[in-house]
Amino acid sequence: MNIEKYMLDVGQRARAASREIGKAEAGAKNAALLAMANAIDKAAGHLLAANELDMIAAQKNDLDAALLDRLQLNNSRIRSMSDGLRQIAALPDPVGAITDLNYRPSGIQVGRMRVPLGVIGIIYEARPNVTADAAGLCLKAGNATILRGGSEALHSNQAIAACIHEVLRAQNLPADAVQVVETTDRAAVGAMIRMNKFVDVIVPRGGKGLIERIAKEATVPVIKHLDGICHVYIDDKADLEQAINIAFNAKTHRYGTCNTMETLLVAEDIAERALARLVPMYQEQGVELRGCAKTRARFPAMKAAVEADWHTEYLAPILSIRVVKDMDEAMDHIRTYGSAHTDAIVTEDYTRARRFLREVDSASVMVNASTRFADGFEFGLGAEIGISTDKLHARGPVGLEGLTTQKFIVLGAGQIRQ
Amino acid sequence: MNIEKYMLDVGQRARAASREIGKAEAGAKNAALLAMANAIDKAAGHLLAANELDMIAAQKNDLDAALLDRLQLNNSRIRSMSDGLRQIAALPDPVGAITDLNYRPSGIQVGRMRVPLGVIGIIYEARPNVTADAAGLCLKAGNATILRGGSEALHSNQAIAACIHEVLRAQNLPADAVQVVETTDRAAVGAMIRMNKFVDVIVPRGGKGLIERIAKEATVPVIKHLDGICHVYIDDKADLEQAINIAFNAKTHRYGTCNTMETLLVAEDIAERALARLVPMYQEQGVELRGCAKTRARFPAMKAAVEADWHTEYLAPILSIRVVKDMDEAMDHIRTYGSAHTDAIVTEDYTRARRFLREVDSASVMVNASTRFADGFEFGLGAEIGISTDKLHARGPVGLEGLTTQKFIVLGAGQIRQ
Repeated sequence: MNIEKYMLDVGQRARAASREIGKAEAGAKNAALLAMANAIDKAAGHLLAANELDMIAAQKNDLDAALLDRLQLNNSRIRSMSDGLRQIAALPDPVGAITDLNYRPSGIQVGRMRVPLGVIGIIYEARPNVTADAAGLCLKAGNATILRGGSEALHSNQAIAACIHEVLRAQNLPADAVQVVETTDRAAVGAMIRMNKFVDVIVPRGGKGLIERIAKEATVPVIKHLDGICHVYIDDKADLEQAINIAFNAKTHRYGTCNTMETLLVAEDIAERALARLVPMYQEQGVELRGCAKTRARFPAMKAAVEADWHTEYLAPILSIRVVKDMDEAMDHIRTYGSAHTDAIVTEDYTRARRFLREVDSASVMVNASTRFADGFEFGLGAEIGISTDKLHARGPVGLEGLTTQKFIVLGAGQIRQ
Repeated sequence: MNIEKYMLDVGQRARAASREIGKAEAGAKNAALLAMANAIDKAAGHLLAANELDMIAAQKNDLDAALLDRLQLNNSRIRSMSDGLRQIAALPDPVGAITDLNYRPSGIQVGRMRVPLGVIGIIYEARPNVTADAAGLCLKAGNATILRGGSEALHSNQAIAACIHEVLRAQNLPADAVQVVETTDRAAVGAMIRMNKFVDVIVPRGGKGLIERIAKEATVPVIKHLDGICHVYIDDKADLEQAINIAFNAKTHRYGTCNTMETLLVAEDIAERALARLVPMYQEQGVELRGCAKTRARFPAMKAAVEADWHTEYLAPILSIRVVKDMDEAMDHIRTYGSAHTDAIVTEDYTRARRFLREVDSASVMVNASTRFADGFEFGLGAEIGISTDKLHARGPVGLEGLTTQKFIVLGAGQIRQ
């Protein structure tokens, strides 16, 4: 198989399909999404059989338990996929929305129309549910998608794609609007991220290594998610109960998510009271604590945090703790060591809350709430394709809007420039 | 001079200054912009003397007349610069604006706050007025700027920068918020477009060659403007007088601008009437016409348009003309040969106008108006840093908003994830 040629063909088909799907009406797209959900439910037996092939091969290749878990489908996961598609169908269609249409002194009306991006390439690891999710979201936003999932999930992905294609054909929508790359050759990724003529944006999902490599080699723009080194700062003017609940929840609600707190910052004047309660709570929960010198002065048995700790996204039951003089020192710490993902302050002080919101340059900045809320569903986007740590285009959780762009429209009555 | 080291220092200073300027209040920024305008007016003599040095060197180096014209300052151009700064001062401050702040079912309020991008690198040709314009716009949007103008304008740019720095210092704003690169070594550009840690976005202004080279080599995101191959399509349902006015204006109002029409598309059924009037008008104006076969069937003396003509941005008094069957053929032509910059239809047909607006995938899509309106001032953005032909982040004319981004803010009352 000539990979370059194959991917060129995939790209051309996607571009052609993007024109059709871009002008499809909301009703047609929603009907297709609901039919896909039903097709996936109906095909559950087939999907499980295809997934079984992937699981057997993965076990033979000694893949680790975490990967096997993400790869595995079962009835409840299949139901989550189909429910996800039903939820996407229920979201408002972003395409074609016209905003800010105003008359200008020249007499023309100028406004903005939300339009699809065109063709979106999704590169992800061996998680079959992403195939349905990403296809559904991109379709709703009027885009064609090229899906390149982890090779370990190829059978599962193709089985899901078969359900999608069956529906697209039956509903007179272009089947090429959703394409699953049918080769496991890594050269396909290399080709896809350089097809500027046929691909408008790449959304890589997976580990930091994968994303960094893609961002480095891509000539197509990339919406990327790198680190999630999130902080909670407990101000000395915090409500102590809130502070304890938030700091505990932000770390222990889930360990492996990007919006989990990795470093707790505590103002000197409240450190005694806050840590006296929090430290035993974390310990009871099995969280390993690593403290700065001031923290360890209070808890001498605690492991010392080293410079690398402040830079680390543990994604594990480990937490570094630093006692700071005040909010300015906390913001300095966040600027120096943070990843501009999600940072929160707990305080009852109005002026500090206002300053923290304005001055902390992160994708999500919170007052008196757990960092775990940084999520497309919790933010009301309805669904998310990922979380962006970029500043351009989409920042933070990326929903349907992030999969579209805006063009200017002008309505005239024969106006010419003077 | 070690260029890498020099640029690293420039980048670090810019990053540090961006934090200060990012939190500066609108009043302080506006006062500084007005003071800069006054400083430039007062320094007119100095600016002209510095510009004279650049002009003498440029003449010695046999630079062409167009470049000399762009390089030259005179009293009226200096006045335009200072007036431009006054206009920027009068625009609303985009920074800190909070939108869509809504309660979620969890009880948290989620909204978006508009924030500066951080550090913006501007790479441009030998046009001293860009120095003041770009510095003013970036400052108003709360960003630090690194300006790298054409080496031929170095003295002029440094003289303008001196006015800006004097004001920044006097107003207690960081002088490093506006830096003019002080070397003409091209390696400075290479260093700047790869300083991802210190530069958030690059805006290149100039010829297509320069912009393509920068986009190719940059690792920092680039807001770019490539071709402006703009079309006017005269539909057979057009108001003939409007069609003639618009088609004439779109070509002849100015030849060298990116929003000038380069190809005229005319529906078969109106071609006879439209071209019988337009062709002599263009000819009288000295516009060279190049026609398709159907056009030349009516005007046999006309030069034949070849394939390359449809792909060409003439930026000159040349126009290619094509007679098409209908709007669908016109849209096919625009998709195949256009540059997704600005395209217009002239029609009185409601359904066609509606379809053209939705289906033509260009940064600016117009009904019954001259393509020459595609401009930040005409669109009401107040000013523009350039026009983007990209799809991500900023599309079409880029004003203050394009120099900012949005972060999510969350206001809670102690909420945690369940």
